[in-house]
Amino acid sequence: MKKTLLTVPLLAFSLFSVAQKQADAVIDQKVKSLLSKMTLEEKVGQMAQITMDVITNGKDRYSSDEPVALNQQRLEHALVKYKVGSVLNTANNRARTREVWHQIINKIQETGKGRLNIPVLYGIDAVHGTTYTADATMFPQQIGQAATRNRSLVYKGAEITAYETRASAIPWNFSPVLDLAPDPRFPRQWETFGEDPYLITELGLQMIKGFEGNNVADPYRVASCLKHFVGYQVSVSGKDRTPAYIPDHVLRDYHLPPFKAAIEAGAHSIMINSGIINGVPVHANYQLLTKLLREELGFKGLIVTDWGDIENLHTRDRVAKDHKEAIMLAINAGIDMSMIAYDYERFCDNLIALVKEGKVKETRINDAVGHILTLKYKLGLFEKAVYDLKQYPKFGSKEFEQAAYQTAAESITLLKNTNNLLPLKKGTKLLVTGPNANSMRTLNGGWTYSWQGEKVEEFAGKYNTILEALTQKAGKENVAFVEGVSYKMDGKYYEEFENGIEKAVKAAQDADAIVLCLGENSYTESPGNLSDLYMSDLQTELALKLGATGKPIILVLNEGRPRLISKFEPKMAGILQAYLPGNFGGDALADILFGEVNPSGKLPYNYPRYPNSLLGYNHKPSENRTVMEGVYNYAAEYNPQYEFGYGLSYTTFKFENLKLSAEKIKANQELTVSVEVSNTGSREGKEVVELYLSDLYATLTPDSRRLRGFEKINLKPGEKQTITFKLNQKDFSFTHLDNRSVVEPGEFKVKIGLLSKNFFVE
Amino acid sequence: MKKTLLTVPLLAFSLFSVAQKQADAVIDQKVKSLLSKMTLEEKVGQMAQITMDVITNGKDRYSSDEPVALNQQRLEHALVKYKVGSVLNTANNRARTREVWHQIINKIQETGKGRLNIPVLYGIDAVHGTTYTADATMFPQQIGQAATRNRSLVYKGAEITAYETRASAIPWNFSPVLDLAPDPRFPRQWETFGEDPYLITELGLQMIKGFEGNNVADPYRVASCLKHFVGYQVSVSGKDRTPAYIPDHVLRDYHLPPFKAAIEAGAHSIMINSGIINGVPVHANYQLLTKLLREELGFKGLIVTDWGDIENLHTRDRVAKDHKEAIMLAINAGIDMSMIAYDYERFCDNLIALVKEGKVKETRINDAVGHILTLKYKLGLFEKAVYDLKQYPKFGSKEFEQAAYQTAAESITLLKNTNNLLPLKKGTKLLVTGPNANSMRTLNGGWTYSWQGEKVEEFAGKYNTILEALTQKAGKENVAFVEGVSYKMDGKYYEEFENGIEKAVKAAQDADAIVLCLGENSYTESPGNLSDLYMSDLQTELALKLGATGKPIILVLNEGRPRLISKFEPKMAGILQAYLPGNFGGDALADILFGEVNPSGKLPYNYPRYPNSLLGYNHKPSENRTVMEGVYNYAAEYNPQYEFGYGLSYTTFKFENLKLSAEKIKANQELTVSVEVSNTGSREGKEVVELYLSDLYATLTPDSRRLRGFEKINLKPGEKQTITFKLNQKDFSFTHLDNRSVVEPGEFKVKIGLLSKNFFVE
Repeated sequence: MKKTLLTVPLLAFSLFSVAQKQADAVIDQKVKSLLSKMTLEEKVGQMAQITMDVITNGKDRYSSDEPVALNQQRLEHALVKYKVGSVLNTANNRARTREVWHQIINKIQETGKGRLNIPVLYGIDAVHGTTYTADATMFPQQIGQAATRNRSLVYKGAEITAYETRASAIPWNFSPVLDLAPDPRFPRQWETFGEDPYLITELGLQMIKGFEGNNVADPYRVASCLKHFVGYQVSVSGKDRTPAYIPDHVLRDYHLPPFKAAIEAGAHSIMINSGIINGVPVHANYQLLTKLLREELGFKGLIVTDWGDIENLHTRDRVAKDHKEAIMLAINAGIDMSMIAYDYERFCDNLIALVKEGKVKETRINDAVGHILTLKYKLGLFEKAVYDLKQYPKFGSKEFEQAAYQTAAESITLLKNTNNLLPLKKGTKLLVTGPNANSMRTLNGGWTYSWQGEKVEEFAGKYNTILEALTQKAGKENVAFVEGVSYKMDGKYYEEFENGIEKAVKAAQDADAIVLCLGENSYTESPGNLSDLYMSDLQTELALKLGATGKPIILVLNEGRPRLISKFEPKMAGILQAYLPGNFGGDALADILFGEVNPSGKLPYNYPRYPNSLLGYNHKPSENRTVMEGVYNYAAEYNPQYEFGYGLSYTTFKFENLKLSAEKIKANQELTVSVEVSNTGSREGKEVVELYLSDLYATLTPDSRRLRGFEKINLKPGEKQTITFKLNQKDFSFTHLDNRSVVEPGEFKVKIGLLSKNFFVE
Repeated sequence: MKKTLLTVPLLAFSLFSVAQKQADAVIDQKVKSLLSKMTLEEKVGQMAQITMDVITNGKDRYSSDEPVALNQQRLEHALVKYKVGSVLNTANNRARTREVWHQIINKIQETGKGRLNIPVLYGIDAVHGTTYTADATMFPQQIGQAATRNRSLVYKGAEITAYETRASAIPWNFSPVLDLAPDPRFPRQWETFGEDPYLITELGLQMIKGFEGNNVADPYRVASCLKHFVGYQVSVSGKDRTPAYIPDHVLRDYHLPPFKAAIEAGAHSIMINSGIINGVPVHANYQLLTKLLREELGFKGLIVTDWGDIENLHTRDRVAKDHKEAIMLAINAGIDMSMIAYDYERFCDNLIALVKEGKVKETRINDAVGHILTLKYKLGLFEKAVYDLKQYPKFGSKEFEQAAYQTAAESITLLKNTNNLLPLKKGTKLLVTGPNANSMRTLNGGWTYSWQGEKVEEFAGKYNTILEALTQKAGKENVAFVEGVSYKMDGKYYEEFENGIEKAVKAAQDADAIVLCLGENSYTESPGNLSDLYMSDLQTELALKLGATGKPIILVLNEGRPRLISKFEPKMAGILQAYLPGNFGGDALADILFGEVNPSGKLPYNYPRYPNSLLGYNHKPSENRTVMEGVYNYAAEYNPQYEFGYGLSYTTFKFENLKLSAEKIKANQELTVSVEVSNTGSREGKEVVELYLSDLYATLTPDSRRLRGFEKINLKPGEKQTITFKLNQKDFSFTHLDNRSVVEPGEFKVKIGLLSKNFFVE
């Protein structure tokens, strides 16, 4: 599935790749030469990555004194004695100013270069903006970016993040997340582009291009790191880092395409899934890391573990009887660099011993270190590891902030608008309520100034919460605020307390409408594990009691995953999904509520109605069968609250004249599909045109439908545009049990909006 | 894992098998000879099974006039013209008297025998007793039988069911269910022996022996049918008949053992999983049906589809573009008989055409028909298809009823007993309340006098509901009854209405204690699909409001699966899980509440606390990890309400002196484990001694623990008994990715009660 627009960057990329190949050959030669000079100890040190706390002043390796300062002795022990080649993360899990970053990383580079002048590779999670740098520009989290369905906004956000990360002296970014994320229970769904492989692939490519540009040595670009190879977010229990069962052909059809496309586009590094697939922790899986990733997909970049995941092979998954065996398994499986975090001596000493004992071959070490050195060369670190701060005048600029605002504005998804209650009229008296109404932390979510996001208020005070933005927009005299329910900000993400529910109900009497801001407090990874997908009891109580007042309620959802609202949804007049929109989410939301922005977001996942009825939009036919004839007249019910792709506008769009270029085609031919879309309302607006394809019969039970194309367009009232999609073999095919991609002749159905047409592949 | 006791029947069986082999050879010869005389049409007819409604008087094939009567023309069209060889089920989905069964089946046999005198094979779901025969003895459903942990009770129940089924002129029973059932969402968990492979295997073997005895031609025995081969109850969505992902080695380690053991024990037929594994509907899976079941496991019995499941390959799963292709796929995969139900002409005509076109080989037809004829010979149907009613004097007798009562009494599981509230003192004034308090339907569940169990009150009026049994036991003057919440008996299983919650709260004022009977209404298969595992909102409200009265509450759970009680569990003083205990469940429960029976049931599954935290007791270590050191200090929480194996008694037991025969053994050696158990309380009681084994490290992430032995014992106060288990290679091994069973040297842990000891396998 290609849109003509997209062929331009693809073409540019392929022209560029000739020059790239020449540059690569030069680097290969340099790496070879350098490797030949290195001792085993130097090589093994390159494979070790530690966290900053290990080399700072502080009572132990797990924490640092403030203000943070490197400890020369610890620094030398790690970087000189053990020759550690990579550092990640901030100290004390806290964002730092650019000045501090420069100071620290300059010193690390100076101390760490060693006799061979090898620069240290510094890596960071710059997720939805440069997470760990104060005053960086914070975009919506990936899930919100997916809701925009806007390729250029995603590209722009990544480009700005690359700029601000490199402005922090860091050249390597552990982003994007390319995980397929069909499970709303999983605590990292918000870090993804949602549940559809095609959507993830398309936006993932944009993000990588935004990070890496045409040359990662560019002082405004960073190396991306694809996460988390592969099949991370579909564990059986829905908990983080737990076992998944994924047949090979399912892995290839649903989980692999975004990674495959990203690798073909030249992404420079990849991080491994911390979970366990079919009994084997992925960090110990030779088939996936070496046979699939290296040999079949031809990945030439750096393979890094996730945090502590070699250790986990022993302590958590018990596939290694001690730490040494764990290191052996992971390195032999294909790991290049271990994100050890703390105990680097154990890693280095054991790995050296393993090589000496012949349990890890030195060729494997050379291979791993070659990937690491190659990335260091490609990033230009040998020439200049840190650029001057003055080279980054746009850091945190209005121009960058405007891009983040625009992404937030296009992400917010209007799910319900009874009697066109929205947009609100000027002068409407509002009660603003709910635990998410006045919080920058909840607008941003995790990976914001810290891992769990608990320090956001400290760093983001200058931006507007929903309450602040609405107050600015509507006037102080028109806005009342009662929180009603509050998060326990020093507790677990799900801890809440009653904070004036009855007061909120009373305040509702004086309001024309209620803006009820519900959702989740911030969390990241395993601490965000969930046992009950329903919205919390207290928030449900607040919604039900406000619902009983009879006042029109606009529910604003600000959450990392779709918490269930079915117990009170009928009482809500309007519903907006804001996801985790970042520092400009409050402003964007206020502009949408008052009609200055026409909402255009579309759900990147199915929003479920019940906790034990979690199905994706592309579920198999058996999940939604009609009644059988006769006595055993069973049916199956498919009951999402809202489906993937859903999202309303303040204007109306009409789809007509769906046309196919042929009724029968051969598998290797292209089918052109066109449709006319017009704005039949009275406001300018953006619409996402989505093409779904169904293979009606196949030897493996087919999906009910699959997204195979989308385009976001802007139409003035009365304006009409013809959108054209091209479908080809890739879209007709699926992976069979023997891992071959096949096209089976037969009937297919194309669906755009409510229009559909069938055709035959011969 | 073998207990010495068990070697006796195993030995008897193997002596018997010499005679069996000779008899088998004679039958093989007869089948061969008969096959050689049959036309293709006659053979294909043997492979067709229809439901009774098709051949009765009635407006269409889907229903029958009452009183039910066979329609001679329809009978001849099906059995003579189309030579259909098998009939199943009752008419109008309603139990019939023995007299009606005899009359109908005699006529079917008379009409159907054809020119070659081949008897018709009549099959039925006699689940927890002879489902479709009025006045038959109804036992607890399998899930309750699993809770007894009592092998001999399970054997006895099956023996009685065989007697009463054959007394109804039916020689073939679609039972037992050997599905691994770790998913509380799945609507058929109650039809199983629960979540553990070993428990299922042990009790499954007893049930098969009870059904089949040493010779299925015996007029008091029936052929069993193993359900549902294989991997049925672990669908991703938790809905019935939907896709599952199961790696081969997981299928072999967890799902296959009960089937393997049952096949080795000689079970005569098997029914296929209606679901889809790894993309392929099992009914079309040649690898599972022919390569695994026939060739590897050596199964020689009859393979029958589930209801309409060849049709489903086309209409539901869309792996066949039309009905004809569906038939081709299923027969070529290895199906012998199609439970067509209705459109037998389509099946027979298409299959004949397929053979003529060479798309199904006649050798495959001969193979299939050979299995069918063999079973007809083995059942003695050629000699005598129907025995005289008078040969079954024990049908529905007190003796049989007593066995059902005993099984119910040993199944009921005491989960909570604050301050020894139970047993109740004589004279305690009780409020009995809840929708399950006065219903024979809910005590029995589905597969009782009809598919969904909705006709139970009509047939089981003479037995005692919980309310009736308690009234008899405690005296009318001591029992008040307010239902509070009621099921809509003509609605879906989950439809309820308020029926006096406030009245119940008021009535509680006059009571010393409340017996609150909650759970589920009856359902079977897909109509029992669930979207929310919490106990219903109305029942939760009843529990919370009664909880607020401060009166001690004894919660009686009467449910097909563990509906969540965490929202009100802290308010309950006592909790008993009754499962679906059958017609004598009310009596057994009353006897337990008043201390005439000491409870001894143990949970056959993990009872979850939250809807999105569903883990088995044998979950992998990653599901329950302790906090990691350092900044990313995540943990994983395992939070069941009650664990597999849990169940209290009115007395106390002490476990001591856990002994192993060695600290190090070789993989092919046997380890003897013994433990002393004593009754340290003041009442006689039964205790289940369960042995768990953990493989501490393995190349595939090991289970946290696995049940490898259990024994139920009875101890008088002060009595002590030494229990001995033997562990061997089978217990130390697991299936690796290449499907080989392996033992990896290393450390193992044995756990019995709170005692544990480690040993090494070399």
